[in-house]
Amino acid sequence: MSVTDAVHVPVVGMAGGGQLARMTQQAAIALGVPLRVLAGDPAESAAQVVSDVRLGDDRSLPDLLAFAKGCDVVTFDHEHVPGAHIQAVEAAGVPCRPGPDALLNAQDKGVMRERLSALGVPCPAFARVPADDPAGFLTAFAREHGSPFVLKAARGGYDGKGVWVTGDVELAARLQAEGVDLLVEEKVPFRRELAALVARSPYGQGAAYPVVETVQEDGICVEVIAPAPGLSEERAAQAQSLALDVAERLGVTGLLAVELFETADGVLVNELAMRPHNSGHWTIDGSRTSQFEQHLRAVLDLPLGSTEPTAPYTVMANVLGGDDPDVFPRYFHVMAHDPGVKIHLYGKESRPGRKIGHVNVSGSDLADLRERARHAADFLRWGPAMEGKR
Amino acid sequence: MSVTDAVHVPVVGMAGGGQLARMTQQAAIALGVPLRVLAGDPAESAAQVVSDVRLGDDRSLPDLLAFAKGCDVVTFDHEHVPGAHIQAVEAAGVPCRPGPDALLNAQDKGVMRERLSALGVPCPAFARVPADDPAGFLTAFAREHGSPFVLKAARGGYDGKGVWVTGDVELAARLQAEGVDLLVEEKVPFRRELAALVARSPYGQGAAYPVVETVQEDGICVEVIAPAPGLSEERAAQAQSLALDVAERLGVTGLLAVELFETADGVLVNELAMRPHNSGHWTIDGSRTSQFEQHLRAVLDLPLGSTEPTAPYTVMANVLGGDDPDVFPRYFHVMAHDPGVKIHLYGKESRPGRKIGHVNVSGSDLADLRERARHAADFLRWGPAMEGKR
Repeated sequence: MSVTDAVHVPVVGMAGGGQLARMTQQAAIALGVPLRVLAGDPAESAAQVVSDVRLGDDRSLPDLLAFAKGCDVVTFDHEHVPGAHIQAVEAAGVPCRPGPDALLNAQDKGVMRERLSALGVPCPAFARVPADDPAGFLTAFAREHGSPFVLKAARGGYDGKGVWVTGDVELAARLQAEGVDLLVEEKVPFRRELAALVARSPYGQGAAYPVVETVQEDGICVEVIAPAPGLSEERAAQAQSLALDVAERLGVTGLLAVELFETADGVLVNELAMRPHNSGHWTIDGSRTSQFEQHLRAVLDLPLGSTEPTAPYTVMANVLGGDDPDVFPRYFHVMAHDPGVKIHLYGKESRPGRKIGHVNVSGSDLADLRERARHAADFLRWGPAMEGKR
Repeated sequence: MSVTDAVHVPVVGMAGGGQLARMTQQAAIALGVPLRVLAGDPAESAAQVVSDVRLGDDRSLPDLLAFAKGCDVVTFDHEHVPGAHIQAVEAAGVPCRPGPDALLNAQDKGVMRERLSALGVPCPAFARVPADDPAGFLTAFAREHGSPFVLKAARGGYDGKGVWVTGDVELAARLQAEGVDLLVEEKVPFRRELAALVARSPYGQGAAYPVVETVQEDGICVEVIAPAPGLSEERAAQAQSLALDVAERLGVTGLLAVELFETADGVLVNELAMRPHNSGHWTIDGSRTSQFEQHLRAVLDLPLGSTEPTAPYTVMANVLGGDDPDVFPRYFHVMAHDPGVKIHLYGKESRPGRKIGHVNVSGSDLADLRERARHAADFLRWGPAMEGKR
C-alpha cells in the first residue's frame, strides 16, 4: 500500500446545484474536503464553481444512486429529494444527513405540524383541510381562529409560493382540484419574524447561532439582522433551546433553521429547513464559523465550530434581480461607495425579483448597517435607477 | 441580441495551480467572477476546486497564450512566468496584472535591489557577485559589511531555498559553476521580521493591511501575528507608506507583499512578492476583505475593500506535513479542543516539512491565540506524537 492509499479524505455529496451548494464549496475548499455536486445543468450556480459535478436529476433514483456511489456522506441543497430515494441511498451504504425521517419534517408541513405539536413545541393553530366540504371546514376554523387565515401547500412551497393568506373559504376547493394537499393555519398576530439556526451532528453535539430577525416582503426574505435587535436574553435563549430541542427530537443531522413568529407571549414555529438557510447567510462574514462550514462539519460528524459573531451586528440584504440583468458594472459604484460591504453573487441569470445574491455588512451602528446593506442591494438590483424604486 | 448576450462578467485567469489560486477561488465564488486556472496537473491544489482548469505548462508560451485567450485579465499564483511571455499575452490583447515590468522586481532580486535603491527605499547593503574573482569580492564585501553575509540566487528562490547565510567566500564560485546568478547582502541585525501587504489597482487606488510580524524557522514562515505586537503607530505607518510607495513607483497592479526587517533604526526591505502572500493568509478570517478578494478586486480594477480587522489580533500558523500524511482524522481532536480555530488545508499531498495548510485564530489575548494556533498546527502535523516534537 502506498502512502497515498493510506490517506482518505471523505467526499461529501450534495444533491442540488443551487447557491447553497455553491457557498458550501467555499467552506469545503478551506477544510480540504472534496465536494461533489449533483446538478441538472452545468450552468447551475454550484456547477459553475465545483470541479466534481455530476449531471443528473436529483429526483431520479438511478441518478441519485449513481451520484452517491463513492461519496462518504450525502446531503442536500434543497428539500425535494423523495424520502424513499434517500432510504435507497442509505440502503446502498451511503449515509444521508439529514436522514429521510428527519427530512420529512422539512418536506411536508402537515407532518411537521403534527410532529411538533406532539412534542409540545409551540405552533400556530393548524389543521389539514379535508377533501370533503373544505369550505365548511374553513368556515368553522375561521370562526375559532379568525379570518383571514393561511392556506399552505403541504409540500413544495418556498419564498411565499404555496402560501395563501385569505378569507375566501372557497379557495381551498379550487386548489385541491389542482392536486394541492392543503393545511390551514391561523394568521398569527406576530410582532416580527425571527430565525434560530442550529447544527446537530450524528454524535449528538449541538451548536446554536445567535437568533436573528428576518424581514420579508411579498413572502421573500429581504433582510436579516443578526442578532435580532432588542430581543431579551431570555427569549433568545428560549428560541435557541427550542431549535436545539427540535433538532434532537427529530434526529436532525446537519443544519436546522427554525423560522419563528415572535408574539406578545413568546415564539411560535413557522417553518423548518434542514440545510444552510437564507437566514444564516450573514454568518459567512459575521460569524467565526459560517453556516456552510458548520453544515459540512455536522454532516461529517466533526466537532462543531464556534458561533461567536465577529461584530456586534451583521446585516444581510438579499439582492434581487432588476430590469437590467447586467449586474457586474454596478460593482464599481457599490464598492467605491462602501469598501466594507461584502458582495455574494450566485452566478445566476438575473431576472426581475429573482434572488441572485446577497450582501453583508458588519459593525456596531445598526441603523447605519441597515442603510448600507439596503443601499448596496438596491444599487445592485437597479443601478442609478434605484431612486424612486422603493 | 438576447438579454444574456448583454451580460458580461469578466473572466480572471490565474497562471499556476497552487494554494494561492485555490484560495482565490473562494473569493471568486463570492464575487460571482469566473476564475480560470492554468495548472500542470489536475491533482494540483487549485485544480481540485476550480471548474475551469486548463492543463498546461505555465512557462510554455503556446500554453500560456492558449490559456489567456478568452480571459479578461491574467494574473499569477507565483513568479515563474517569464516576462517575455507576459509581454506576448499583453500583445495579444489580454492585460496581465501585475505587468511584466513590475513583476520583474519580484522575479529578479538583483533588479529589485537596484530599482529600490534608485528610488531611495531602505534596503540592506547589497552587490551583484561578479564572475571574476568572487572570493576576493566577497572578502572585501565582508570587510565592509560583516561576516557572515547572505548569498542569494537572483532568481527562483523561495522558503529559504536559494539563500545561503555563510562566511565562506569560496561558496559563491561553486554556486556560480552550477549556473546560479548571485547577489550578496549584509546580514541585517534585525529585531524581527515584519510584512506590509498592500493592494494597488490600475486606476491607482491603494489599500494597506495592518503590518504583521512574521516568524520564520529554517527559512520557512511558521507564524504570522496581525497586527505586529508592540509596533508603534509611527513605524507601522512608515512601513505601510513604504509599501504603498513601492507599489506605485513600480507600477504594481494587484497585491504587493513587502517583507521587512525591523532594526533599531527603522525598517529595511527584504523581499517583494506580487500576489497573495503567506503573510496575508490571516486576512481570510481576520479582515473584512481577504487578500484573495483584494487581489481580484485590484486586478479587475474594482474599488478596493476595507482592510479593517475583525478582531484585535489574528494569529496564523502554517501547517507543515509530518511523518504520517493522513491529516483528516486529526481534525476531530483539533476541532473538539478549540471550536474557534479555522483550518485551511490545501489538498496537497502531505510530505514532511511541506506547507500543506494553515490555521487562523482570532481574538484579543495574544498569548492565548499564539498557543492555540501553535497547538492546532502541531497537532495537524504530528497528531498525539506532537509532545516532545518541539
